Amino acid sequence: MENLYVNTAITIWENQVIRAENLFQKFTNEEWLSEICPGKNRVIYIIGHLIASADHISPIIGTGTAAYPELLDIFIKNPDKAISDLPPVEQLKKLWHKTNSRISVELKTLTNEDWLQKHKTVSIEDFAKEPHRNKLSILLNRTNHLTYHIGQLTLLKK
Amino acid sequence: MENLYVNTAITIWENQVIRAENLFQKFTNEEWLSEICPGKNRVIYIIGHLIASADHISPIIGTGTAAYPELLDIFIKNPDKAISDLPPVEQLKKLWHKTNSRISVELKTLTNEDWLQKHKTVSIEDFAKEPHRNKLSILLNRTNHLTYHIGQLTLLKK
Repeated sequence: MENLYVNTAITIWENQVIRAENLFQKFTNEEWLSEICPGKNRVIYIIGHLIASADHISPIIGTGTAAYPELLDIFIKNPDKAISDLPPVEQLKKLWHKTNSRISVELKTLTNEDWLQKHKTVSIEDFAKEPHRNKLSILLNRTNHLTYHIGQLTLLKK
Repeated sequence: MENLYVNTAITIWENQVIRAENLFQKFTNEEWLSEICPGKNRVIYIIGHLIASADHISPIIGTGTAAYPELLDIFIKNPDKAISDLPPVEQLKKLWHKTNSRISVELKTLTNEDWLQKHKTVSIEDFAKEPHRNKLSILLNRTNHLTYHIGQLTLLKK
């Protein structure tokens, strides 16, 4: 049965993915390698970070495994500029599409009840006390995480 | 009846309000008047903008009226630095608390069915085609808007 609460959350996630994409598609190759502000993260790092973050939604909500675990080290565990050998811009653009297309499909495989179940990184004890730490909260907070970085990427263009 | 989908969304909104507050409470008065990055919006403008944005949730979801309509002109209709006479920092801190406390209360007055009804700024025709443009979408997108600016405010401290 359709659940409009969940569908609303999924639609908003997908809209923000498109919004991020519309933003970075306008960046020149030079801008991809620029810092968003002097001394801050580079565009390429933030976008790689967002791909790795989306890729890891799957294991946390139990819909699959991360397809690019090697990105975790480059774009999440390490800060920008710690690793000099980043994937090229063209490859990141492809990974963005592949990952977000896959996540969109996976999000639609969960049932209404699944969305209210605990996610993988909360303990059974904590979840009993805090039932809002469910799979829906992962989707909402990943959307917040995405807009957090959209707010930063926007600075380069304004 | 409790609706865990809605409760999850409200909890996440409230957590992001606290997160923003924890961030700007550390700002000195000088930092409140600083730009987040050279040539970009000042902290005081972004926080005023977030207060005005929260204040206007009420009329959009139909739970009340905006308490500070004068903020709309200063912090939403005009860009930063267009108006030189901004409310003082101490007053903005009070308005932040008053507004977000009020919104928290108002969010809990809506029924489960209310959350799926159209909000005030979408037409009946558009809502018929796009039922996700409901009151829940306002809450989720205001949360996204909040984290968008948290991502910017964070730049001052990192």
